[in-house]
Amino acid sequence: MFESRFQSFVALGDPSHGRARVSQLRAELAKQGLAGFIVPRADEHQNEYVPANAERLRWLTGFAGSAGLAVVLKDTAALFVDGRYTQQVKTEADASLFEFRRVPEDPPSEWIAGQLKQGDKLGYDPRLQTPEAVARYAAACEKAGASLVPVDSNPVDAIWPDRPPPPLGTIAPHKLRFAGEGALQKIARVRQALGSSHGLLISDPHNLAWLFNIRGSDVSYTPLPIGWAYLPLEGRPIVFLDGRKLSPASRLSLTRHADLLEPDALLGFVEDLGRRGERVAFDAATVPAYLTQAFERAAGKAEIGADPITLMKAKKNPAELAGARSAHERDGAAMTNFLAWFATKAPRSRLTEIDAVKALETFRRASPALKDLSFPTIAGAGPNSAIPHYRVSEESNRKIERGIFLIDSGAQYEDGTTDITRTIAVGRPSPLMRDRFTRVLKGHIAVARAVFPPGTNGAQIDALARAALWRAGLDFDHGTGHGIGSYLSVHEGPQRIAKTGTTALAPGMIISNEPGYYAAGAFGIRIENLVVVEERAIAGGERPMLGFETLSFAPIDLSLVEPKLMDAAEIAWLNDYHARVRRVLSPRVDSSTRRWLAKATQRLAPAKHPVSS
Amino acid sequence: MFESRFQSFVALGDPSHGRARVSQLRAELAKQGLAGFIVPRADEHQNEYVPANAERLRWLTGFAGSAGLAVVLKDTAALFVDGRYTQQVKTEADASLFEFRRVPEDPPSEWIAGQLKQGDKLGYDPRLQTPEAVARYAAACEKAGASLVPVDSNPVDAIWPDRPPPPLGTIAPHKLRFAGEGALQKIARVRQALGSSHGLLISDPHNLAWLFNIRGSDVSYTPLPIGWAYLPLEGRPIVFLDGRKLSPASRLSLTRHADLLEPDALLGFVEDLGRRGERVAFDAATVPAYLTQAFERAAGKAEIGADPITLMKAKKNPAELAGARSAHERDGAAMTNFLAWFATKAPRSRLTEIDAVKALETFRRASPALKDLSFPTIAGAGPNSAIPHYRVSEESNRKIERGIFLIDSGAQYEDGTTDITRTIAVGRPSPLMRDRFTRVLKGHIAVARAVFPPGTNGAQIDALARAALWRAGLDFDHGTGHGIGSYLSVHEGPQRIAKTGTTALAPGMIISNEPGYYAAGAFGIRIENLVVVEERAIAGGERPMLGFETLSFAPIDLSLVEPKLMDAAEIAWLNDYHARVRRVLSPRVDSSTRRWLAKATQRLAPAKHPVSS
Repeated sequence: MFESRFQSFVALGDPSHGRARVSQLRAELAKQGLAGFIVPRADEHQNEYVPANAERLRWLTGFAGSAGLAVVLKDTAALFVDGRYTQQVKTEADASLFEFRRVPEDPPSEWIAGQLKQGDKLGYDPRLQTPEAVARYAAACEKAGASLVPVDSNPVDAIWPDRPPPPLGTIAPHKLRFAGEGALQKIARVRQALGSSHGLLISDPHNLAWLFNIRGSDVSYTPLPIGWAYLPLEGRPIVFLDGRKLSPASRLSLTRHADLLEPDALLGFVEDLGRRGERVAFDAATVPAYLTQAFERAAGKAEIGADPITLMKAKKNPAELAGARSAHERDGAAMTNFLAWFATKAPRSRLTEIDAVKALETFRRASPALKDLSFPTIAGAGPNSAIPHYRVSEESNRKIERGIFLIDSGAQYEDGTTDITRTIAVGRPSPLMRDRFTRVLKGHIAVARAVFPPGTNGAQIDALARAALWRAGLDFDHGTGHGIGSYLSVHEGPQRIAKTGTTALAPGMIISNEPGYYAAGAFGIRIENLVVVEERAIAGGERPMLGFETLSFAPIDLSLVEPKLMDAAEIAWLNDYHARVRRVLSPRVDSSTRRWLAKATQRLAPAKHPVSS
Repeated sequence: MFESRFQSFVALGDPSHGRARVSQLRAELAKQGLAGFIVPRADEHQNEYVPANAERLRWLTGFAGSAGLAVVLKDTAALFVDGRYTQQVKTEADASLFEFRRVPEDPPSEWIAGQLKQGDKLGYDPRLQTPEAVARYAAACEKAGASLVPVDSNPVDAIWPDRPPPPLGTIAPHKLRFAGEGALQKIARVRQALGSSHGLLISDPHNLAWLFNIRGSDVSYTPLPIGWAYLPLEGRPIVFLDGRKLSPASRLSLTRHADLLEPDALLGFVEDLGRRGERVAFDAATVPAYLTQAFERAAGKAEIGADPITLMKAKKNPAELAGARSAHERDGAAMTNFLAWFATKAPRSRLTEIDAVKALETFRRASPALKDLSFPTIAGAGPNSAIPHYRVSEESNRKIERGIFLIDSGAQYEDGTTDITRTIAVGRPSPLMRDRFTRVLKGHIAVARAVFPPGTNGAQIDALARAALWRAGLDFDHGTGHGIGSYLSVHEGPQRIAKTGTTALAPGMIISNEPGYYAAGAFGIRIENLVVVEERAIAGGERPMLGFETLSFAPIDLSLVEPKLMDAAEIAWLNDYHARVRRVLSPRVDSSTRRWLAKATQRLAPAKHPVSS
């Protein structure tokens, strides 16, 4: 009955080939006179989801996480992963081949500086590293008296016999009624933001997609077209895309505003710009070093900074916001149909995590508007719920038993991208679970209710999300919120709600509100809605203020709420939210869900004897 | 009966001499071939309180604020001040001579770039500017095709006939029982923090005072000795101080650990370091550009960054914290004697702001431990309370009538520096005053009660101080908190509670907690206590947490509190604080004050029908 089409449950990691492949790589390095080589989990655009032909780190080491980096030297090698993957790496890569190290605490550059010998040459692929990363590794090599050298072609590719070809996903126009602004106007706005540069090299495919109102299908979960563009201050922009990917409609719409070239023309084009002495802006976050290096060698003046499109794209226009609201109503209905089904089945049907993922996807597919998931659904039962980025596979799949079940999922629709997490109690939750859930909910509500002046950044809001946990000596080890694209990436910058969030929150920005709590080996909690920054008129107020409109709709499990820990304003928020959920979703869900929804969103009464927290 | 010895009420600003002096300066500039000159309100150490001979900006323009900068060109001139001084500058400087511009919105570098002509030479005094400021002005000149040139001697000094000589304030040892750590141990700790540098040039007199456990008397309100030091990685440190300032005891204690040289030996010494190719750390915040320029010209490798002493000095040791607690109990008693006196006198005695300042200083002088005020007392009645940095003069002095009176003051004791603000209602306050006061108090309490993990910075805490104001569409335009020295400056970095506070709050840091609200022309509110960051054990907690211990003791005016706006936890904090104030101060105040104190600190009952805010 239920099936999954967008997500596989095959275990991706596999430590068994590492020994042979690392040994082949070392032979290849010896041939090239290199003492070692850096293998990042990256493509030429620093994408989060990379095409299959860029999965070099996974092919070489077996490690299948979404971020990581290996450094392979003659006699030793290290694999660097962040806190999300310190457990996973142990089962997916061979500990007799690699030292496992945790970033950012233990950065690759320090390890490199400590391991290399005087005169060593450490190779790197300048197509897979940003200029800033290259500078960092070069400094590390210099400390050891060694040198960092770019390779012309990647030595991993030389030993990877069945490496897939580059993707040829179809590119289609993104309709103006969803985009809300034509490419010509966008181009004019970007040009105004260029300052002293003669042009902008667009290396972030999300920004390419936004500027020209196109969407692609080169990677999973994000409808981005892998490609490049150059936007000169004057004259026609040039788009570098594999012509085989263009639908007739997208070719027509692109060539109205831009010239088309094949991606292999890019390097020569950039060198020409350099030879003409142009001052060109490059995106520090995504541009591969080989481009800026070639440009500067040719005497160009590189201005490496933030691509101004990134901030423009983050601020959604009225059409994008209207789309987001529609997408969230549609997605909330699917999610709520799932929750109602789960509430009936879970206590008596011995469901597994995979059953739940398949069911949720199937409820979403009931709408023909569904294009894709926005990421593989995270569905964790019991102890698996305590792994914030858990990916269920046939091997890890758990039965959903009494206790906590956490499900974090999202969808891609043409009118918007969604991302929602609910934590559900199966059976009667323990007092500890209720205490922790309520503290996370207090943080979620503190963000949802926040009022703040223009200029406030996500680091300041982040403290509100954590205060109720901090007071109890608790915390969680991920950000509170990330930006979200408009039928684009589910993780989009530059704004974040996190200690590192230095971008001011501005009207139109969509961002997640997802505080959590994780008791390793026991249970995890996360409550996530998307919110949009809006202007907030305040009666009697003296200054302009901003606030959040919550976009996501689905009940929050009341059996996990301890009213004693909540103040009157928090309970009022929860009741108002649930009334809105009921009003918006009742006409959109099936009749049995409607009955369940009425109960799931009933008013919560304030506690008679609240506990001061 | 009451008198002021540490503070004068003479109006300092005076626009009447500007025209003649600017005209003399222009003649002097013409002689030197300069198209203009930059006159900052600065000494050679970027001190907040500068010696009289460094008050060039005031002498030239008449403007007497504590921060500002003039740029005088051939036919035009501008005076740049921040938001605190935009009103004051209009009465103290001549608007027909200067354009008044507001920083940071309207920075001098943009004005310079717009005004200078191709080939112009703009002069600056490299003793009064940091390298970073020089780079900024140089870039501005370059934009206009002009150049920035250092002067050998300051042209303002050439036309200032009665310029005072440099101060010769006595330097005395700072006793070990207050300092808590000997100079030798401090020197060893600083050396460990030097990284790859061969030595540290200490240009901040506060850091000089801290490192060698000395205190001086060269400027008002801060017991700092103007001077320099060089701390080599190995060998004896060299201290550059005018020998006439050293008491026999301080000479003895200094020469135990360091060699002494006269300040005029500094430049040659730094050049020698440069010629030897040394790598020297300089303090970016305070080092004058002439030193780094001379050092680099001599082939030295300058590492311009944060002086590591600044962070060490900010974290007070147990002896300094014990001293701070004693100082605050003593100072709180004086403040409370004042408040009790004021409560009796103010409603029926037609007191003025100056009367109040004199009375408070006199109550403080009752303790022989008082060394100085830590800044001129800010005492504002009615509309003057709405000026955050108001300085009362004979001219501005107002009668204290029904309404708001705000008093912000502090003292220097050998065991600690204090800073406290109370806002008092004279007569019955209006509902609006009570609403605003209560919102400010809620912010104050949110900071005082905050619990947060190590690594949290002041920008995150700042949002807590403002949330209750933001919710009502209100805010205030200054930081929530600044660091405080230990018998040193009342404003000390690097930590701040402010949107710009990026330094992590660490145990032992003392910082002010002073949210406010200002209705221009009507009334202002500020509630300030000092707090110290402490480790906080939490029953059932899983992670280390920090919190604040409040150090300041004085009642908060209950007639301004609206209990309906406060939740149970806030009222509990206020009642606990007042109980502590009563317990600590009752034995220390006079008997009539004791009776008043008991009433002023009575328990507040929670409102029966609180308003959700």
